[in-house]
Amino acid sequence: MLVPGFIDTHIHAPQYSYTGTATDLPLMDWLQKYTFPAESSLRDVETAKRVYSSVIDRTLRNGTTCALYFATIHLQSCIAFAELAASRGQRAYIGKVCMDSLAPADYIESTEESLESTERFIQSVRGLGSELVHPVVTPRFIPSCSMELLNGLGALADRYDCHVQSHISESLDEIAMVKSRYPHLKSDTTIFDTCGLLHDKTIMAHGVHLDDEDLRTLRQRGTSISHCPLSNFFFADGVLPTAKIVALGNKVALGTDVAGGYSPSMLNSMRNAVIAHQVTRNFAPIKSDELLDWRHAFHLATMGGAKALGIEGQVGTLEAGKSFDAVLLDAARGGIDVWDSDSSMHLLEKLINLGSEVNVAMVWVKGRLVHKQGEAVLIDDPVPLQAMEDTSSAPYTYGVC
Amino acid sequence: MLVPGFIDTHIHAPQYSYTGTATDLPLMDWLQKYTFPAESSLRDVETAKRVYSSVIDRTLRNGTTCALYFATIHLQSCIAFAELAASRGQRAYIGKVCMDSLAPADYIESTEESLESTERFIQSVRGLGSELVHPVVTPRFIPSCSMELLNGLGALADRYDCHVQSHISESLDEIAMVKSRYPHLKSDTTIFDTCGLLHDKTIMAHGVHLDDEDLRTLRQRGTSISHCPLSNFFFADGVLPTAKIVALGNKVALGTDVAGGYSPSMLNSMRNAVIAHQVTRNFAPIKSDELLDWRHAFHLATMGGAKALGIEGQVGTLEAGKSFDAVLLDAARGGIDVWDSDSSMHLLEKLINLGSEVNVAMVWVKGRLVHKQGEAVLIDDPVPLQAMEDTSSAPYTYGVC
Ligand SMILES: [Zn+2]
Ligand SMILES: [Zn+2]
Repeated sequence: MLVPGFIDTHIHAPQYSYTGTATDLPLMDWLQKYTFPAESSLRDVETAKRVYSSVIDRTLRNGTTCALYFATIHLQSCIAFAELAASRGQRAYIGKVCMDSLAPADYIESTEESLESTERFIQSVRGLGSELVHPVVTPRFIPSCSMELLNGLGALADRYDCHVQSHISESLDEIAMVKSRYPHLKSDTTIFDTCGLLHDKTIMAHGVHLDDEDLRTLRQRGTSISHCPLSNFFFADGVLPTAKIVALGNKVALGTDVAGGYSPSMLNSMRNAVIAHQVTRNFAPIKSDELLDWRHAFHLATMGGAKALGIEGQVGTLEAGKSFDAVLLDAARGGIDVWDSDSSMHLLEKLINLGSEVNVAMVWVKGRLVHKQGEAVLIDDPVPLQAMEDTSSAPYTYGVC
Repeated sequence: MLVPGFIDTHIHAPQYSYTGTATDLPLMDWLQKYTFPAESSLRDVETAKRVYSSVIDRTLRNGTTCALYFATIHLQSCIAFAELAASRGQRAYIGKVCMDSLAPADYIESTEESLESTERFIQSVRGLGSELVHPVVTPRFIPSCSMELLNGLGALADRYDCHVQSHISESLDEIAMVKSRYPHLKSDTTIFDTCGLLHDKTIMAHGVHLDDEDLRTLRQRGTSISHCPLSNFFFADGVLPTAKIVALGNKVALGTDVAGGYSPSMLNSMRNAVIAHQVTRNFAPIKSDELLDWRHAFHLATMGGAKALGIEGQVGTLEAGKSFDAVLLDAARGGIDVWDSDSSMHLLEKLINLGSEVNVAMVWVKGRLVHKQGEAVLIDDPVPLQAMEDTSSAPYTYGVC
């Protein structure tokens, strides 16, 4: 089954080294114990190349044709990452992380350094001339950025017409920290907005604790939310009411949030988006009557990501005139039984519910084959599969062949 | 890494044919649309053998050395299932399902038929003389059983000293149905107890809506709860406060609840047990300060199941004097990266968080090799792995080599 490539709109490439472990602490403690040491070690460009090669390889193997990455604060390592992505052929939006506050002594920048190296990073990545790889203005999150830095980054994003990413209203400890620092400002949304960081090329991760006013601001700015359900279960002190937010008209995409999310698989992210939604059906105050099933999760993982990045004219569905970013899924692998009576809808449902990297046979980005499993072969004369019927209401559409 | 075999304490073998699909309806509607037609078709013994062979094969491939199965109401098909399990070498506790009420015309028994064929099933399975395969008295759930049937089954379980299984306090629609039928009886627990079906060889699935009084009754009877987190997300209208219930002293084990749970993998069940617990940390009234992480989930999937079945002296850990029911897991397969710095604790954590059938290299039940992946080889002179440290409080113990 040929499906549009998966778009991971929130993944921390330098945290890949501890993927699958370390989900035992609240957010702020977790950053100190696991994240900052792992990221700090990537100041060494050779170490960075090794880790970044692994993460590009692993995500491509999982069918992630496009990823919005957080890297680290280190300019040279970030440039090396962009070069690797370009040569490996992944569609990559890469952020040099900015942090001038509340970080370890060996993993912090001055405000000037942060702004200057962000500008140099933008110029360097644009200088690669790759159609696939793009720089992203990336304040880590409000606690690690001074107001001066946030304002400077807003100006840079504006000057260079750059994508922006950060974390927003993720967890109670993060929110408490922002509140104690800026008691007069209402929320993360207010602060980002004041600094000119919310626009239609901005993707904010999590947003579990956004209120209706915040959501309205994000809608007005055209800013997207990257929903990372697995990570949220461990760190967010709540669950994003995704179906409600989609119904309000906010743009929503999916992310893995590696390594806060322990899995780099977007199939896992789709499954957990459905589980998170099921949770919202039972617990106030996020109770929702909207539907979010595997089909909607699949949409969020493809077109949702494309719209968040503003590239829905190029990718997100398999349509004439778009770039061929595609994944060939094979249901008859791993732990899935296929029966004669299975329709293509059944096969896709099984793949999303039970599939893994093992089911990803081939992956293309912009027509280039970027991953092929050992045994994968293209059938010369395939049986045409029917287009998926659209059994749900707008705004969902599907692009399955 | 060699670990104790996984024990699935709740799985519907005849529903295996739609595993991975059909999670779109509330429980009672779901039974009518998907479950009863699938189960009814297994009156044909050859069809039953085909489905039961698949499910035994698939669960063994997933490292399930022991399973507590629901079958169907059909005596001959159930006996064929027991013979298959015995010859394939899986430790199988099999229930001929009993239902004399509220079922389709082509999938229902009279009270007498149900009791008589349960007794014949017990005798037939015991007549196989297998140490591995055992009959289980199995009223489907209270809505599908008359009080006369429940009382008769209680007497049979007593007379034959048989295991008992059913569903208890699973979902709001099930509870409403029981309440309208027996307005004078407090809960599922009261009814099962009145009929003599709660004892220390009883395993009740779900229990999401058990209250403190119900839980006390189950503790007093020594009855176990089979927690099926994935299925609960879709059907239970709530989340089991597992850590709280374990802390109270109730016996808890894990199940997949195929096909209400879409995955036959106990690794998936462990992951979702942790996610379900994380959900309980955020939502009243089930808020819990207890811990339930991947290590506890691993315990529930091994020793938890052994204790639920009363066979903790034979299986559940790898110890001298116990039966060799074991799974050889290979972390360096599928989507997992292994680093030199990974401890055996890291490897097991990664396997539980990211593993699948692909990582199950070899499986033994009672010393017999019952599954071996193509490339799996035993190393003659293995590097001894350290025993897992027990970093948690009682009552958890581990048995990892
Ligand atoms: Zn993040
Ligand atoms: Zn069940």
